[in-house]
Amino acid sequence: METKKRTEIAALGQFGLIDRLTHGFSPKNPSTLRGVGDDAAVIAPPAGEELLCSTDSFFEGVDFDLTYFPLKHLGYKVVTAGVSDILAMNARPSQIVLSLGVSAKLPVEALDDLYEGVRFACDELGVDLAGGDTRASMTGLAVTVTTLGHAPKERIVYRSGARLHDLICITGNLGAAFMGLRLLEREKRVLSDVTNPEPQFKGYEYLLEKYLKPRPRTDILDALAEEGIVPTAMIDLTDGLAGDLMQLCKASSCGARIYLERIPIAQQTSALCEEMHADPVVAALNGGEDYELLFTVPLSMQEQVMRLGLVDVIGHITPDPTGCFLVTPDGQEIALKAQGFPEK
Amino acid sequence: METKKRTEIAALGQFGLIDRLTHGFSPKNPSTLRGVGDDAAVIAPPAGEELLCSTDSFFEGVDFDLTYFPLKHLGYKVVTAGVSDILAMNARPSQIVLSLGVSAKLPVEALDDLYEGVRFACDELGVDLAGGDTRASMTGLAVTVTTLGHAPKERIVYRSGARLHDLICITGNLGAAFMGLRLLEREKRVLSDVTNPEPQFKGYEYLLEKYLKPRPRTDILDALAEEGIVPTAMIDLTDGLAGDLMQLCKASSCGARIYLERIPIAQQTSALCEEMHADPVVAALNGGEDYELLFTVPLSMQEQVMRLGLVDVIGHITPDPTGCFLVTPDGQEIALKAQGFPEK
Repeated sequence: METKKRTEIAALGQFGLIDRLTHGFSPKNPSTLRGVGDDAAVIAPPAGEELLCSTDSFFEGVDFDLTYFPLKHLGYKVVTAGVSDILAMNARPSQIVLSLGVSAKLPVEALDDLYEGVRFACDELGVDLAGGDTRASMTGLAVTVTTLGHAPKERIVYRSGARLHDLICITGNLGAAFMGLRLLEREKRVLSDVTNPEPQFKGYEYLLEKYLKPRPRTDILDALAEEGIVPTAMIDLTDGLAGDLMQLCKASSCGARIYLERIPIAQQTSALCEEMHADPVVAALNGGEDYELLFTVPLSMQEQVMRLGLVDVIGHITPDPTGCFLVTPDGQEIALKAQGFPEK
Repeated sequence: METKKRTEIAALGQFGLIDRLTHGFSPKNPSTLRGVGDDAAVIAPPAGEELLCSTDSFFEGVDFDLTYFPLKHLGYKVVTAGVSDILAMNARPSQIVLSLGVSAKLPVEALDDLYEGVRFACDELGVDLAGGDTRASMTGLAVTVTTLGHAPKERIVYRSGARLHDLICITGNLGAAFMGLRLLEREKRVLSDVTNPEPQFKGYEYLLEKYLKPRPRTDILDALAEEGIVPTAMIDLTDGLAGDLMQLCKASSCGARIYLERIPIAQQTSALCEEMHADPVVAALNGGEDYELLFTVPLSMQEQVMRLGLVDVIGHITPDPTGCFLVTPDGQEIALKAQGFPEK
């Protein structure tokens, strides 16, 4: 087994630690006037564009388990989560600001790994790390990412713009991240007493990647722009299709009908569901963390949307009092329910 | 004793909780195009101005102890912390975005209190709550505040602009918040076995207020603008005078000499230090959480700065290799040391 160097955080001090972690992050976007190293980052959104800002937190023991979540992937994933929120407004992500709570049990090398993942994601997605805060935490690791982006006002898409008969479109497939998590938890449980555990992931690599290293759908932003499509409403899929669709409908004062057989589910998701006696549709509806996009377009845009080649139309918008329903192949209508607040 | 209603977070669900907490926060700044309730906030900085963004986290058990920290005050204090960072850039704060990690042990009413403090601070300071994220946390309460502000480019002040012979100015007085914390901890210790504890705070109300409900120095921003002063460098005092001055000097590639007898210390700070056999200068140098501002101005501006009536000049900038020193009344020079990263 590889023995890694272990440097205690206390050996560097808070300022030394921040210097080490943020070393080599130099701003690449012209809108980043000042990045890491002052009381605040200074940003100049492109002339005539508005600025977007969102925030997401990840807590150890709730949002990730360090037994099987490599810190490098966690660094990548928090950037994905932030970027995905900005994409969901049909805007371009440009900066992130990272806030860490770290317990002394983590060595500096672990935080190096986290930052390596952050750096990799920033480079790949063209965003700058523009600042942050690193503090002690009594308990587990806590990561909050604030993401900034920009867009011309007329291209910004809210949750509230869906209209009657609009088509409900989603990118990618759903439930894969959730099944990746279930697989990791199963192997952890099974191997908890084993000295040199060798978890069995063969055939499910895609599910692990969707959970541990999801990619935000920047390609959709480009494709929509190219086709000249501005969705009427959009949200990113993080809480499961059911909860997120209900959020969009609530903001738009409308209802929705989606069709069970149209919900895209990856082959590996179905296979693992069968193995674990789970329902893939439940994984899609309530699993969450897909980081795909759900958006609505007017019925008249059906052809244009299909031309994207990246999207499935899974249903349509109904009048307000109807509520949100899943229609089964035999015509049954099941009212959707949002997942509850996790109790710990 | 008052019996408060206790509603479990799980009874509302995540979306219900967010709705309840953010209810009634409507944007007041014209730059807030869209606040709470979408994937991201939408901000339009005033034409010709740059946008500033900073982030701060507070963790239960490290940054606050809920035994004696009322949640209403905590809500106020996190806004102060965020706003203070923006002021330290000589900019106007305009929006905050709040990210909460909450454990199920807190009832909804506790979070109502937290948000009441946030609302009070937002109203007082003229900033909008423009978004947020609320998630479960396995352990304690975690609050991250992201603050946005704006300023014309030529008025933004960085840490890096201090020049040789510049005067080092600070607002208010130092060490009071730290002694407020020590007082609260003493009473908690003393009264840990008592059934109806009645802590003794008489005569030290100012210290408690500086720790529990500090006000950011928005008045300084106005005063500097009115006098036409743009500091050469600025930082807010959150880690203690020593650490923060060293940060500013490092960013400006310079040294500093400050004079012990010029460090402003409030009467209550001195009195409690005497009672607890503590050194008020150590409280000022290393205590932190003062939320005062430290800034530098050219020597030629001494008169103008004194006219503000809000500031003490405590020393001056020296050449780089000199380092940062505290000069005692008998002429001794003591090298300053930054406080270490707290080990937990």
